[in-house]
Amino acid sequence: MSTPAPSFCGLSAATLLNERGVDIVVLEANDYVGGRTLTVKPSTKEEELQFGWVDLGASYVGPTQDHVLRLCKTLGCETYLCKDNHDNIHYSRGRRCRYTSSWPCFWWSNPFAAWDLRSAIIKIQEMVDQVPEDCPWKAAKAIEWDKMTFKEFLNKQCWTRDAKEFLEALCIINNTADDHQVSLLFFLWYVRQGQGINRIWRIKGGAEERKIVGGSQQLCLKMAQKLGGKVVLKKPVFQVGHMDDGIMVKTTDGTVYNGSYVILAIPPVTHMKIHFDPPLPSLRHGLIQRTPMGLVIKWIAFFREEFWVEKGLNGFVTCMDGIEVVTNVGEDYKPGVSSYGLICFICGQHAVRLSQLTATERKNHIYKVIADYEVVHFEEKMWAQEQYIGGCYTSYYPPGVLSQYGPALREPLGTRVFLAGTETARKWTGYMNGAIEAGERAARQVLHAQGKIPSDEVWLDEPKCETVPPLKLCWLETHQPSLGMLLAVIVLLISLFIALLQLY
Amino acid sequence: MSTPAPSFCGLSAATLLNERGVDIVVLEANDYVGGRTLTVKPSTKEEELQFGWVDLGASYVGPTQDHVLRLCKTLGCETYLCKDNHDNIHYSRGRRCRYTSSWPCFWWSNPFAAWDLRSAIIKIQEMVDQVPEDCPWKAAKAIEWDKMTFKEFLNKQCWTRDAKEFLEALCIINNTADDHQVSLLFFLWYVRQGQGINRIWRIKGGAEERKIVGGSQQLCLKMAQKLGGKVVLKKPVFQVGHMDDGIMVKTTDGTVYNGSYVILAIPPVTHMKIHFDPPLPSLRHGLIQRTPMGLVIKWIAFFREEFWVEKGLNGFVTCMDGIEVVTNVGEDYKPGVSSYGLICFICGQHAVRLSQLTATERKNHIYKVIADYEVVHFEEKMWAQEQYIGGCYTSYYPPGVLSQYGPALREPLGTRVFLAGTETARKWTGYMNGAIEAGERAARQVLHAQGKIPSDEVWLDEPKCETVPPLKLCWLETHQPSLGMLLAVIVLLISLFIALLQLY
Repeated sequence: MSTPAPSFCGLSAATLLNERGVDIVVLEANDYVGGRTLTVKPSTKEEELQFGWVDLGASYVGPTQDHVLRLCKTLGCETYLCKDNHDNIHYSRGRRCRYTSSWPCFWWSNPFAAWDLRSAIIKIQEMVDQVPEDCPWKAAKAIEWDKMTFKEFLNKQCWTRDAKEFLEALCIINNTADDHQVSLLFFLWYVRQGQGINRIWRIKGGAEERKIVGGSQQLCLKMAQKLGGKVVLKKPVFQVGHMDDGIMVKTTDGTVYNGSYVILAIPPVTHMKIHFDPPLPSLRHGLIQRTPMGLVIKWIAFFREEFWVEKGLNGFVTCMDGIEVVTNVGEDYKPGVSSYGLICFICGQHAVRLSQLTATERKNHIYKVIADYEVVHFEEKMWAQEQYIGGCYTSYYPPGVLSQYGPALREPLGTRVFLAGTETARKWTGYMNGAIEAGERAARQVLHAQGKIPSDEVWLDEPKCETVPPLKLCWLETHQPSLGMLLAVIVLLISLFIALLQLY
Repeated sequence: MSTPAPSFCGLSAATLLNERGVDIVVLEANDYVGGRTLTVKPSTKEEELQFGWVDLGASYVGPTQDHVLRLCKTLGCETYLCKDNHDNIHYSRGRRCRYTSSWPCFWWSNPFAAWDLRSAIIKIQEMVDQVPEDCPWKAAKAIEWDKMTFKEFLNKQCWTRDAKEFLEALCIINNTADDHQVSLLFFLWYVRQGQGINRIWRIKGGAEERKIVGGSQQLCLKMAQKLGGKVVLKKPVFQVGHMDDGIMVKTTDGTVYNGSYVILAIPPVTHMKIHFDPPLPSLRHGLIQRTPMGLVIKWIAFFREEFWVEKGLNGFVTCMDGIEVVTNVGEDYKPGVSSYGLICFICGQHAVRLSQLTATERKNHIYKVIADYEVVHFEEKMWAQEQYIGGCYTSYYPPGVLSQYGPALREPLGTRVFLAGTETARKWTGYMNGAIEAGERAARQVLHAQGKIPSDEVWLDEPKCETVPPLKLCWLETHQPSLGMLLAVIVLLISLFIALLQLY
């Protein structure tokens, strides 16, 4: 018997084990299955026509996320393309920059900043390529990069405030933690396992290319349905004890489960909720103390008109001026409904401040931002309120943690307790794809421990999804000299010009 | 009924409440009372004569720690002065600097470094003075200083590698966290509430002036003895629930305690071990995820000879060359025993590495460092192994935490749950003094909630201990221009000299 706990990852593990005939029970702390996915269904026919289902948690899938694409196929769920035909906006200090590609181009307002941003992105990708996907702590410069916050790196790398502020926004939106909170090594690793800066930060061809028709939580609901009574809700685990011949798990209502193996499919910090017997090794205990969950308030509003498209905009906005509350806006496009959705992400100090208000106060506060437009429906989710999740999207690593404590990330606790959760994935950690990868790998660890499969069948690569091909980058996206080199070339050309003038 | 949990702080709270006739129970997770104090008693007469009692946890007391000095007096415990008559050593990159005062003087090897270090210390103290003792998040520059690691500050402030490396050592020894792990704001606050850089880092007149005859744990043992059966061991709390008319507390063995109030006298991160009903407010949940315990291995060895004194040394060593394992050594002086003790603190990446070895491997590793001298007795304590403590000395704050989440540090959870633990103290947090201050304050919060005392009697200042007077600083310790200004003066003098030469 194996007992995985909460949701997307645990259900993936349970499904695989169940198919292999292993006797299992899934203990879910919450009163629903889905983990960090949650789809609000319309309660009336009118609502269905107006705005349909709403994803309040993980929502997007994209190319190279082969695990989740395969699961969609298996469970008969369709994906659809998000829209990406118009312009994006980057706000900063009261100014706005309108652009079409992934990166704002400040060419007309500040050509130095445009050059600076492009070369910083290329520099970041060069560093990203030096970080091993599965064990970032083994990067040649792991210790050096882990002693630095991403902010510190930006201060050294960027010449212009525009470039720096956009990359700050990228960090805060990507990691739901401020650039001064995360280590440079973690930032690079997160981008690395998200398949590079040009894929993790992109709609078409990137991490936000697609959504699942009907919402993402249905993947969990369908897996749970197949498992039937083997999934038990409202069973927070508070104790995991090793016995001579197995494992004992206790839930807060006093129920005791005895089994042979356990998969802990929860974020690292949620392991702190469990009293371990014997206590955890000190490296593992150090890790779970040091990897908090990111903080984001997700807020979705539906409007009668698609006013942004009327202005030729995608609805995608990044905002880093420290005045507006919203850090990131994206379009919540859904075919077949009469209203038009925008998703707002509120991050950083604004999220800390707003999380202390009541839901009504928060709503009033955010409504001010969109005063000009009538909202026909509204949903909000603050994952930081969830005791057994702690935040969203995923764990972040402050400086000095990943290089030192990283090796304890996936290391099993003895021979019977295996660690899963999207945070332990080798690819797309923090995403649904990582949750499935980690869950299935942990399930195969159990099968291996049971002697059912050899060790080389535990860590498997997922076959590529043929229908969603990966992105190809153009030459210009990967090549550009630094601003320093550009200036040197300009100075050289001017010198040559003057020299030529002297000659003739 | 009130139920405080683990040790020094909990016992202080319980003692005060018990004296006021409140019906209490103390639930201690471990099988001993003392929290982060632990005194090994000699098991034979021979051991008593040879090395006596050994403090493996908190040990030192000093002037301005008026709470613990008063408690010593109340419980009939004497303090004695640690020795501070000889020279200290600072090792760095294979070189050693011998010095007498609190700060290494590199005057002969590198006068610039000497000047640089002195002016950095004065600069730090100026900044420390701007941080409010009880609410560092209200400092005028709180947000700016919290976006920076202490390492980043040192890189900006210090001109010389010698000065920088010594201050790195100071940080790692003071906070049991690397200079790149802690925010500048936290570093400054910790020094502030430790009554300034010239007191927290000092033997005579400072935090390490005295020890308690017989060891520090006896304070807890004596308090527990007075409380008798009201202290229950091996009762880890895993659930705290609010009911209509009180509080329900459950321990891992299934026992249920019902009461009117609870004091949680545990480090912030240990709150993660508790399942709260209702769940914590998100600011509090964010805080306890983001404040890990420091990491240190404390290692005490006794030698036949006081070989360091023969060389005119105090036994106090700081080491920052990245090669030697030990970060800090101090003398474990005790009158009336025949052997001579040294306490070694192993911090940072060395501690991470060594914590993964077995006790024997670790011992062999450390023995190499002191190969020349015969060890007659040896004790070791790795607090990171303790599930309900998680590390030592205390919590640290990575960048971006104290300014944002700090306000949740001592804020009661509703009207019945009060927060204590040395981490919530206003003075000497992380020390025994802070534990007592916080415990007694939380007890008075309960008394106030019961209507027994008015609100202005909750937060009380402790009367000064007359027998242990505070330190007076000399003028030179607080005044010195920066290296930049020194250089400017030198350039000015040389210019004047040349000008005068031209004149005559």
